[in-house]
Parts: sequence; C-alpha cells; structure tokens
Amino acid sequence: MKILVINCGSSSLKYQVIDSESEQVLCKGLCERIGIDGRIVYQKEGLDKEITDIPMPTHKEAVAAVIDAITNAKTGAIASLDEIDAVGHRVVHGGEKFAASALITDEMIKVVEECNDLAPLHNPANIIGINACRELMPGKPQVGVFDTAFHQTMPQEAYMYAVPYKYYEQYGVRRYGFHGTSHSYVSKRVCEFANADINNSKIIVCHIGNGASCCAVLNGKSVDTSMGLSPLEGLVMGTRSGDIDPSAVEYMAKKEGLDFAGVMNVLNKESGALGISGISSDFRDLIAASGEGNKRAKLAMDMIAYRIAKYVGAYAAAMNGVDMICFTAGLGENNAGLRQAVCDHLGFMGVELDASRNDGPSEDKLISSDSSKVKVFVIPTNEEVMIARDTAAIVSGK
Amino acid sequence: MKILVINCGSSSLKYQVIDSESEQVLCKGLCERIGIDGRIVYQKEGLDKEITDIPMPTHKEAVAAVIDAITNAKTGAIASLDEIDAVGHRVVHGGEKFAASALITDEMIKVVEECNDLAPLHNPANIIGINACRELMPGKPQVGVFDTAFHQTMPQEAYMYAVPYKYYEQYGVRRYGFHGTSHSYVSKRVCEFANADINNSKIIVCHIGNGASCCAVLNGKSVDTSMGLSPLEGLVMGTRSGDIDPSAVEYMAKKEGLDFAGVMNVLNKESGALGISGISSDFRDLIAASGEGNKRAKLAMDMIAYRIAKYVGAYAAAMNGVDMICFTAGLGENNAGLRQAVCDHLGFMGVELDASRNDGPSEDKLISSDSSKVKVFVIPTNEEVMIARDTAAIVSGK
Repeated sequence: MKILVINCGSSSLKYQVIDSESEQVLCKGLCERIGIDGRIVYQKEGLDKEITDIPMPTHKEAVAAVIDAITNAKTGAIASLDEIDAVGHRVVHGGEKFAASALITDEMIKVVEECNDLAPLHNPANIIGINACRELMPGKPQVGVFDTAFHQTMPQEAYMYAVPYKYYEQYGVRRYGFHGTSHSYVSKRVCEFANADINNSKIIVCHIGNGASCCAVLNGKSVDTSMGLSPLEGLVMGTRSGDIDPSAVEYMAKKEGLDFAGVMNVLNKESGALGISGISSDFRDLIAASGEGNKRAKLAMDMIAYRIAKYVGAYAAAMNGVDMICFTAGLGENNAGLRQAVCDHLGFMGVELDASRNDGPSEDKLISSDSSKVKVFVIPTNEEVMIARDTAAIVSGK
Repeated sequence: MKILVINCGSSSLKYQVIDSESEQVLCKGLCERIGIDGRIVYQKEGLDKEITDIPMPTHKEAVAAVIDAITNAKTGAIASLDEIDAVGHRVVHGGEKFAASALITDEMIKVVEECNDLAPLHNPANIIGINACRELMPGKPQVGVFDTAFHQTMPQEAYMYAVPYKYYEQYGVRRYGFHGTSHSYVSKRVCEFANADINNSKIIVCHIGNGASCCAVLNGKSVDTSMGLSPLEGLVMGTRSGDIDPSAVEYMAKKEGLDFAGVMNVLNKESGALGISGISSDFRDLIAASGEGNKRAKLAMDMIAYRIAKYVGAYAAAMNGVDMICFTAGLGENNAGLRQAVCDHLGFMGVELDASRNDGPSEDKLISSDSSKVKVFVIPTNEEVMIARDTAAIVSGK
C-alpha cells in the first residue's frame, strides 16, 4: 500500500509517501509559513529538493499543494491520487481514549477534541490537518496515530500523580507520555536488529532530540516514561525545563511577576539547554561553545547527560533490570560524547561502551563492548514508517 | 556538655536536653498550641510524661516554660540553667550561605532571614524560637543547625534546574534539599554500625516519614537528594505530591479556579497518600484500609514504594553504584512491607532482603541476606543528637 503520512503543526505540515510493504520513502517534504505566506519543500527519492512559494492562507491550500507536488507529472512520486491507499496522521494527544491507532471518523474527531485541553498547542493543529485532508481527499481512509497510545499500558502506580484523586477522575490529571510512536518503533527495531525476543525483554529507549523522553519498555509494552501530563516533564530539553520542584513554578512567577501562562511560557520556551547556557537550544552550538571553554554551555550538556543517566537508573529499577538501552533522535543518534557521558554512570549495572563502536554515523548499531552485560544501541527513529505501518494495518483490517 | 536542643515551629516547640558526651537524652518534651492557649509536655529520662496547661501567647512563654520544666526542683533533669552549655536550634533553610552549622549572631540571623522567602512556613518560626532563647538565656551560646547544610556538597549538575540561569543568580532557584541532619546522621551511623569506611562508600538514605526524601551520599558527602527548592519535590509523602509535571500546576489551577497559593496548598496539604487514598495521611490507616481491600489505599502505598525504588535506581546511577541502602524515619523504620516492596525492584543491582531480618522492631539492623551484593539496613534517625553534636563541637571550638 502507498500511505501519505501527515504531521501537522500550527503553521507547518510535514509529509511523506511511504510504500508500506517495502517501507521505502517515495517522496517527502514540508509546508511551512502556513497562514503567513506559504512555501512547500518537496523531494522525490533520488532527486534534489524543490522549493516553491505558494500562498497558503490555511492548511487546506497546504494539503492541496502537497497533492499537486506528489502527483506532479514531472517529479511526482505517484501518477494520481488514486495510488494513495490511505492517509496516516500523527496526533499528539489521545488521552485515555486511544490505546492504539484508529480510523478517523466524525465521532473519533470529537473524542480527540476532548483532549485539546491536554495539548492545546498540538491537538487543534492536528485536527485542522485531518479536516483539510478529509475535504480534499473525500472517501480516502484516514487513520490517527497517537503519540500517547503506546504508553497506555503503563500500570497505575506509574501513571498516577499523587494529587487528589478527583483531579484524575474529573480532569484527567495523570502521566500520558509522548513520543510513543518513536519509543514503539525503536523498541521493536532493536529486537529485530539484535535478534532478541521482544516478549522477554527489558528495554530503555532514550529519545533525545529537541524534545526528549525516556521510556521503560517491558516485554514490548511501555511501563513508564518521563514525559507526563504534557511534554514538559522529565529530561532537560532544548528549551523545556523537564523536572523541577512544583514549588518553583509559584516561586518564579512571584519573583518575576508572571501569571500561569507567563511562567509556563518560560518553562517551555526559555528553559532547558537554552536557559542554562544563555546561548542556544541547538546542541551543535552548545557543543562548540563548551569546547571553547564556555562553562554554562558545558553545564547544560552535563545536566542533560546526568538527567538521562538518572532516568535510566530509575527505569532499570522500574523493571528490575534492563537488557538493552537504545539512543535515538537527533542528539541521541549523533552525539557519541553524550552517550559516553550517560553510560559512564551505568557501569554498576553492567554497561560498558566500546569507544570505537560508539563513534561514527547514525545507523542501527551496537555500541557496547562484547563483555557488556547490558547491550547499548543506536537505533535511528522512524516515526513516519510506524505511522505508515499502523495506517496500512488498520485499512487492510489486519 | 549539656545541650538544649530546640526545634521550633509556628505554634509548637520541641526540645531535648542531651549530654553530648554520652549522647544520652536527659529529658525531652514539646510545647504546643503556642499563640492559642498553651500546653507543655515534659518527660525526664526514666519517668512518666507530665502534661501542664500554661498560657503561651508567644514563643517566649513557651521557652520560659521549658526552662522551668527542665530546672524544676522535683523532676527537672538539671539543677539550674547554668548546667546548659549551649542551645542548638534546628533551622530549616540556610540557602547557599550555610554549608555547616554555625554560631548564632545578629549577623547570622540576618542571613537566615534572607532565606525566609525560600521557606516561608518554617524559617520565620525558627527565628522566633532563636530570639526567645536569646532573650531568656542571654550570653548562652546558640548554634543554628540547618536542614539544607549537608546538601551543599551537591555538584552543580545535580542542584541546578534547567530554567533560565538568571533565576538561579537573582532568586536562588536551585535544589537545596532538606532532612540534611537526618541524612548526615544515618550515613555516618551506618558506617559505624557496619564497620565500613565512610570515605570509600556509596550510600543511599531513604528517609520515609510524613515528609520523605532520598539522598545519595558518596564518600560521606551528599551528591543528590530528592527534595528541591522546597520540601515539596521528590517522593510521594503523607500530604505532599512530590514530583509532578510542572504543567499540572497550571492545568489543575485552571480547572479548579485556583491561584498560585491555592494550588500550592493542594499540592502541600491535600495531595500525597491522603490525596490518592482519600482516607488519611497516616500510614497506619492506609495499611489497615489496604488490608481490607481498599484499592485507593493500596494504590497510595504502591505509589510510595514505586517512587522510592525509582529514586534508588536513579541515585545508584548518580554514584555509578551503591554499597548500602538505609531506611529511616517513621515509615522507613517501621514498615517491613514497604521495604520489601522497594527492594523487590532492586534485585538487578544485587539487592536481596532477608525476610526474617526485615521483620521486627525499629533498631540499627542489617536486613539484607548474607549473599546480597548491596547491604540494606534499618537505621533509626536521630536529628536531635546530631544537633547536639554539632552544637557541642562549635561551642568547644572543635
């Protein structure tokens, strides 16, 4: 099957056409500046990128531009839209309603809208993208793939916060977790790659990009993860604080004269590596500055590594052990120094990196030594292929 | 030396007279309902408790009542106040200013007052107690012993939050940690008890009372701890939430129409085991209810154990190993089931409890099996003796 994969943000839309049998990417690209002016980037497999400015007052024009690009007579990856069997959409928050991907219906959109309060920045944009696709591709099956779904297997002691129980019952206050599609992909992929039995495995996935989360995967199922009610909790990220004392929310607001929205903006957009370093949320900048002796850039990198190491320790305890640790996403795949810094904390549980294996480009690879009791891997993530897989499976009724 | 140890709250004052050489408690007691009506409880070593109602409009009358009780001709532990060599005060927050206990001077009180914003419920009460003692015992050396001091050895990557750096510089936003006197006492005591070299040790102390915190102690020095800017962060406590997604602070406030003070009140006083169970913050009630099949009481106990286990895993990673795990304080000393539930997660790191050793009364004891790679102990805490030790050492110039 040929699946159009859509990841829709408030002013951008990423897309890929994936052959679900071969898992080959036939073409991919990005619409940006939607609602401002509009630009589409398109790249057919094996060809150069094409960049075209097209007015995109709404997401509808963006989706139309995607359809034009992928069916373009000259460089289109397909001859006509009829070749697309289904559209798979990334949806950030499915609350407790979706423990798996699901066919999009009017009913289902209503349920997703009920989760908008839990992901006010993401879900409304996801729904706008879905609606634009339904309008321009009527009758084409559409599937929602949720960032939260993979984590719905967490046991109650892992997903509950110790706040009054009625806040859970009435408002859904609990840990949901995100990056589920990535954690799911990586935990499955590492078992294939290492020829391990996923039904008898203890895996910790460290998804370390600009957003970052760890996940404890026991026998293929998520049993704990570091993001919570929102994608703010957990690891130190590019601009997000991750874990802090909840009292600090009040204390910082008071000291700076901020309201709730103001302090949340600081914690989401001015904190993390950017806040500590004062330089950048881009890890390449931080590594460069740290190399030149910038102490706060070094501190930011040290904090990122230390926090990851503590989560790996915590999740080893959660599962009473760990067989495989996987690093994925931008920083996780590309920064050997960070992986080394994390694993330097983990000798006690039998982790031993092999420095030469840890070096080199991002690809599926073992980076621990042959004598390491816990195996450590780099596994490049691929959320799009996971969305294509789920979409094809649902459409074909498998 | 005979040391009067004072722990002063907003409407209560606990006291002990301790012989710093023998570390014997000569008498102890409590003033309560200060500012309301007033009552003193007094008990001389070996005798029954005496309870007397005495008007205590302020802490000054409470301190006067303590002096009367301890020097009482009939049951007083000392003949006159001259026998008291010094007074040691528990002070909750010393900020970054105090990395050790210190002689109380006018200067020093000013510095403690600068930390009031960081501990608005505790520090002002501590200072009131100090001032009452200075007034009624002029010339008697007074020493401040800080809950935060032991944790001042934490490295920067452990004590910094990933928020804009100026919040640290301008407002002191960082992890301070509390229960330092207890973590210090227990980590020293376990080394004596186990005949271990503290300068070559990796200890995790789990102080589990109504307030609760874990501490990673490397070679006798705190290198990380679960309480943070305030005593709200970290473990699930009697009425405190411990760790939650910082976004939940805003989300809960919005849903309930609360302001910052309102949501902090919920997180400090209506959350934790009380919030989850809906029954009680008293663990005896929870254990009873859980035994009768109450699911939310059981969930509260499960969450407490699970959170502790994750912190032990995290701190083992922080130190790249752990030699000794110590349980202390009310629940930590007295609940064998909780210790078992925590250690059930830790087999992977070589923890093996001995069920019969784990049973029985609270006393210094080894509770792991002889083959356990990591040794596990119960060590009853004794913050008062630690305050007496520090006070005697400072007064004698040692």
